[in-house]
Amino acid sequence: MKDPIKMHQDLRGKIVITSKIELNEETLPIAYTPGVAKASDTIAKNKSEVNNLTGKWNTVPVVSDGSAVLGLGNIGPEAAMPVMEGKCAIFAQFAEINAVPICLDTQDTEEIIKTVKYLAPSFGGINLEDISAPRCFEIERRLTEELDIPVFHDDQHGTAIVVLAGLVNALKVVGKDTGVKIVISGAGAAGIAITNLLFEYGFSNICMCDSRGVISEDSTNGNGYKKEILEKSSASCPIGSCNLALKGADILIGVSKPGQFTADDIKKMNKNPIVFAMANPIPEIMPDEAKKGGAKIIATGRSDFPNQINNALVFPGLFRGLLDNEIRKVTPAIKLAVAKAIAEMVKNPTEEKIIPSIFEKDLVPTIANALKDFDKMGKRK
Amino acid sequence: MKDPIKMHQDLRGKIVITSKIELNEETLPIAYTPGVAKASDTIAKNKSEVNNLTGKWNTVPVVSDGSAVLGLGNIGPEAAMPVMEGKCAIFAQFAEINAVPICLDTQDTEEIIKTVKYLAPSFGGINLEDISAPRCFEIERRLTEELDIPVFHDDQHGTAIVVLAGLVNALKVVGKDTGVKIVISGAGAAGIAITNLLFEYGFSNICMCDSRGVISEDSTNGNGYKKEILEKSSASCPIGSCNLALKGADILIGVSKPGQFTADDIKKMNKNPIVFAMANPIPEIMPDEAKKGGAKIIATGRSDFPNQINNALVFPGLFRGLLDNEIRKVTPAIKLAVAKAIAEMVKNPTEEKIIPSIFEKDLVPTIANALKDFDKMGKRK
Repeated sequence: MKDPIKMHQDLRGKIVITSKIELNEETLPIAYTPGVAKASDTIAKNKSEVNNLTGKWNTVPVVSDGSAVLGLGNIGPEAAMPVMEGKCAIFAQFAEINAVPICLDTQDTEEIIKTVKYLAPSFGGINLEDISAPRCFEIERRLTEELDIPVFHDDQHGTAIVVLAGLVNALKVVGKDTGVKIVISGAGAAGIAITNLLFEYGFSNICMCDSRGVISEDSTNGNGYKKEILEKSSASCPIGSCNLALKGADILIGVSKPGQFTADDIKKMNKNPIVFAMANPIPEIMPDEAKKGGAKIIATGRSDFPNQINNALVFPGLFRGLLDNEIRKVTPAIKLAVAKAIAEMVKNPTEEKIIPSIFEKDLVPTIANALKDFDKMGKRK
Repeated sequence: MKDPIKMHQDLRGKIVITSKIELNEETLPIAYTPGVAKASDTIAKNKSEVNNLTGKWNTVPVVSDGSAVLGLGNIGPEAAMPVMEGKCAIFAQFAEINAVPICLDTQDTEEIIKTVKYLAPSFGGINLEDISAPRCFEIERRLTEELDIPVFHDDQHGTAIVVLAGLVNALKVVGKDTGVKIVISGAGAAGIAITNLLFEYGFSNICMCDSRGVISEDSTNGNGYKKEILEKSSASCPIGSCNLALKGADILIGVSKPGQFTADDIKKMNKNPIVFAMANPIPEIMPDEAKKGGAKIIATGRSDFPNQINNALVFPGLFRGLLDNEIRKVTPAIKLAVAKAIAEMVKNPTEEKIIPSIFEKDLVPTIANALKDFDKMGKRK
């Protein structure tokens, strides 16, 4: 692999902004003063014309406060920039969306909400990124309520959608259904969003662990999001370390930290276990170790193993669909539709191929197309 | 001229964002996870590396609250979008700067200051635009003090610089010097900035008018900016309407409203009067009317008459120079240097050619080059 520092030094910025038309003596007085005044005047008289006369409809900020960046944690807004820029480059190349990295110099929940609301007139949707839990839940909920453009926290829902897509195909391969027992290791933004989407899909036999072990009535510690999951779950989960919960489980989903499980842990699981070990860059259990424990299907967040579970499969197509169909709310029904569309791209799932690649040309249009059936409020028409 | 509405409808956005490199199986894991983590980690350890590893150094938001857009006034953030986008397209084409239109949904001075400060980690400089006076003065002053990147309110200083550049050459043509008597019609953001820069250059015989007539001790109405100008001026100005002040004046600079002066007003001026009538799109006096009154040199903001006084001559090259030389403050010395550099581009000024065209290839590099002699604080080295 080429040295990432060298690549970033050579590029000094991964995106470039250009003028759509050549500005010359004929076009400049139309694109800028005096002609542009007519476009402004038209919008002043009818605000919704902004979507016909400017790029607002196709522009999305990738907003972070740098508080939960990759596996690096709270590294601040400047250090978050390379990640947000990378995401913007993906938006551009795969979905032709104008995405702008916006790393904020505040980690105050109310200030972030206010700032994003102030920015909203220039944008067609908001992608929140790498904001730590539980602040990210409140920020996303409030912005979704208070803005008339779609708001999407990718670490939560992008991850949840791609995990569900992979699971749907993995279950096909092993011939199991939604009755399976699932263990979620990690109760941060991703773990909670995954679990909630799995409930929406029809799974219910789910145990969740956080850093102190299996969560229970006693351990939810007043965290309403964990409590809600306990209430929705039909599983009877042991009290103690997460490894205990693996006994008799069919699926392990890791969104926690590197090296948390061994081959022996996997051996305790049901026949043909499915292991999604998504800590990045080092998974909760390395694929060869999981294999040793008998794992039938293994997925990670990495591109150097089969079955890469990567948010980048979701956000370009999802936003393409939201923007093209002027959908203002990302509802559970939309998330399920996107997960199914992604899963269906793999015609014949196998142990080594449960998920499409980001480089498949049909991916973005297939996802975007799945959103045609939804109205502005994200309800199925 | 092509219909501006049709052009804006066809484009649906005047700028486009693309990825600088093709993202493929080799480059994606370096530009995004996992490789990008190394770039983030490097910046986390040394914040200034953000300028070497991301596009921050070359990215500028064009920030407006939509409160004073062109001649249209307070039309709000959505209606301001076409203007800001046009400006971003100019930044892109003429100076290869990544400029992003940011129209804010607040007109509160403190909220605008706070928001721009929150945005600062992602940007190499700030272009403020179309924010009404007197709020624009406070916003620019505070941001300049509190940020470590350059802040420039184009309506004030872009206008002032290009006016000074034009005046320098106009005076050469008529053979006059800085002892001339100048009347400034308009005491908004542009009028005040122009007058202050003219003082910096060495002019002092200046009368200023606002909408109620020539400003005087009695009429400044507690406006500190107007009061300061009165104190600096060496002129003895009449009390009453602005037309009175034209008697014996050498130069009229209009940054006020259409149709304010007639040929008879110009006739009262000294021999070989210079008239800059910059209200847009309809000037304070039309060029043929000014000619009738004896004006020797006439400039407007329009591209369909000679001598177009246009901010677009300034901001692309100015920001190119600020960003390339990592200059953090736009000082009076920098403004004077840019005005001189623009004036010198016209080797032999004539009545019909006192200012270069934005399409002259040397314009941006010439301005940027003039900033090589300044240090980070905007002082001459």
